[in-house]
Amino acid sequence: MRLNEAISNIKPLNKDAQEKAWKRWDSLTKPPRSLGRLEEIVVQLAGITGNPFPKMRKKAIAVMAGDHGIARNRVSAYPQEVTVQMVKNFLDGGAGINAIASTANADVFVVDVGVAQPVEFTHPSFRSYNVRHSTRDFSQEPAMTRDEAIRSIEVGIQVVEELDKMGIDIIGTGDMGIGNTTPSTAIISVFVKDTPLDILVGPGTGLDREGIKKKRDIIENAIKLHKPDPMDPIDILSKVGGLEIGAIAGLVIGCASLRKPVVIDGFISTAGALLAYKLTPEALPYIIPSHLSSEPGHRIALELMGLKPMLTLDMRLGEGTGSAIGMLVIDCALSAYYNMLTFEEAGVSKGE
Amino acid sequence: MRLNEAISNIKPLNKDAQEKAWKRWDSLTKPPRSLGRLEEIVVQLAGITGNPFPKMRKKAIAVMAGDHGIARNRVSAYPQEVTVQMVKNFLDGGAGINAIASTANADVFVVDVGVAQPVEFTHPSFRSYNVRHSTRDFSQEPAMTRDEAIRSIEVGIQVVEELDKMGIDIIGTGDMGIGNTTPSTAIISVFVKDTPLDILVGPGTGLDREGIKKKRDIIENAIKLHKPDPMDPIDILSKVGGLEIGAIAGLVIGCASLRKPVVIDGFISTAGALLAYKLTPEALPYIIPSHLSSEPGHRIALELMGLKPMLTLDMRLGEGTGSAIGMLVIDCALSAYYNMLTFEEAGVSKGE
Repeated sequence: MRLNEAISNIKPLNKDAQEKAWKRWDSLTKPPRSLGRLEEIVVQLAGITGNPFPKMRKKAIAVMAGDHGIARNRVSAYPQEVTVQMVKNFLDGGAGINAIASTANADVFVVDVGVAQPVEFTHPSFRSYNVRHSTRDFSQEPAMTRDEAIRSIEVGIQVVEELDKMGIDIIGTGDMGIGNTTPSTAIISVFVKDTPLDILVGPGTGLDREGIKKKRDIIENAIKLHKPDPMDPIDILSKVGGLEIGAIAGLVIGCASLRKPVVIDGFISTAGALLAYKLTPEALPYIIPSHLSSEPGHRIALELMGLKPMLTLDMRLGEGTGSAIGMLVIDCALSAYYNMLTFEEAGVSKGE
Repeated sequence: MRLNEAISNIKPLNKDAQEKAWKRWDSLTKPPRSLGRLEEIVVQLAGITGNPFPKMRKKAIAVMAGDHGIARNRVSAYPQEVTVQMVKNFLDGGAGINAIASTANADVFVVDVGVAQPVEFTHPSFRSYNVRHSTRDFSQEPAMTRDEAIRSIEVGIQVVEELDKMGIDIIGTGDMGIGNTTPSTAIISVFVKDTPLDILVGPGTGLDREGIKKKRDIIENAIKLHKPDPMDPIDILSKVGGLEIGAIAGLVIGCASLRKPVVIDGFISTAGALLAYKLTPEALPYIIPSHLSSEPGHRIALELMGLKPMLTLDMRLGEGTGSAIGMLVIDCALSAYYNMLTFEEAGVSKGE
């Protein structure tokens, strides 16, 4: 599915299913709305799926991997080769996301959208959809062409289509890409002109104070150099973005297009979701935020979309680790929705 | 075990086990400390158990139930009979805590510490340790005697001893008691003299604005009438507290005494934990906070102990529902700790 087609497919949530879900919640043995966000999430899932009794049986985390030309300026504490090493680690089952997704009973899929080296893994959970081998160094030139930016988004859409065919009910976003807090921060900064860069820029995987200052200057200079257009998300993505960030935007748009809930992870995923939201605000009701990262710009990016995180765990690993924990909270919400007795069934007196 | 004995048993966490746990975390394929609170929690569990590889195989939620004389002033949206009806609902498996604890693979135990009516359930998960049938109306007289207050705490300690003998590794606190945000708010208000009552008092299960004002006045007048001593937690508990709140304080002290982690739920549980902390600050490192309730005084009470909640779900149900979700986050933390590969094992380059 092409980007334009996916966007034009997006419809509002099903209000009838949502009303039915509220009715069910209000009949259960608890003060009305006292399960807070758990109730809202189930109602959202009802609206997304059009089913007042939504089931989220099969879950998947899609980890989008890409490299960044900007990394040559040492904006990360890690060398670029770690991206491909971690892709291998994901497929070997040894990374954080494997452990946490396993607890959440979610499958992990890994997609090469823009890894620097040729990646030749044959693994059922691996997809080789490389758009280009690393972005260019956007301190010097645009990160990618406009066409590459669109293709990176379409990789995300394609992954949703494939997971949909496999019967996956809910998708969590994840990322891997050494240096990718720098493009993410740059993207977000274009949308929040009033917020000084000093407030947005953080340590990523572990920069010291000097490193953070350098990262800040690189972003400031790149924005001055390329003048990305705040009204044109593709322009921003191509000039200061990343291929895995585009693919995450594609996951969000693909999920909205196919009426599937998408759980977003931390800072990188939120930059991707923000691009999707700016491309098509109709995608917003399909997004379920998970955790609040310790990266300082994350809260600001979430607030731009009016999204409130469920978890505050000071995590900053990415990979979809927050999405996977978020899926467990969703499990709890659905369990309460399905398994609680009504006031009538339990013989409990109703309130005033 | 008596209260004094339990308090005198409490020892600091095992630093050696904690250091070993940090070492393990730092060897795993992720930027150091990038799993944030997940890492801290496992280190805390190592320190609590004295084992650098702690296991939390068997989990339990202990729901403490009690009634409140103050409820006759209509400080709740629900009639008092709901307490005993909900105790039955817990044992029938139809309440919110049953559904969520089941997802978290935790057993639910229900303890009658102070239900108004005689409760005669025979159920393996029910404990009948009633100290008195409802507290007195503390707008008129002290809620209970000093002796009853101590006995309510000792019920909590006894429950921990029993769960310990059953091989339970981790205990979550829960509460049931119509009207119990009123005593909880009163307890917290004694410890935060500088915070105006208007900021602390909230809607509980669903009071309207007028109801909240009335609740506020009742608390203010009761504090004036009884003058609970901020330096004497037993005095506070007996004058404006509740029996299930005392029992929750006992759960915390019992867990600290038997070197067991205790996950605390929302507003009511935090009032209980605060009493435990004021009785014996050494209990604090045994506490794992779970969620931030939508009850306005909750954040303030947590901050008094320096505790940061993991979950923000606008929940206000109690019963231990937040504790149970918190246990799933702990599962994720342990899964990452045990199942991630080290940099060496995975062949991933280390950072600077």
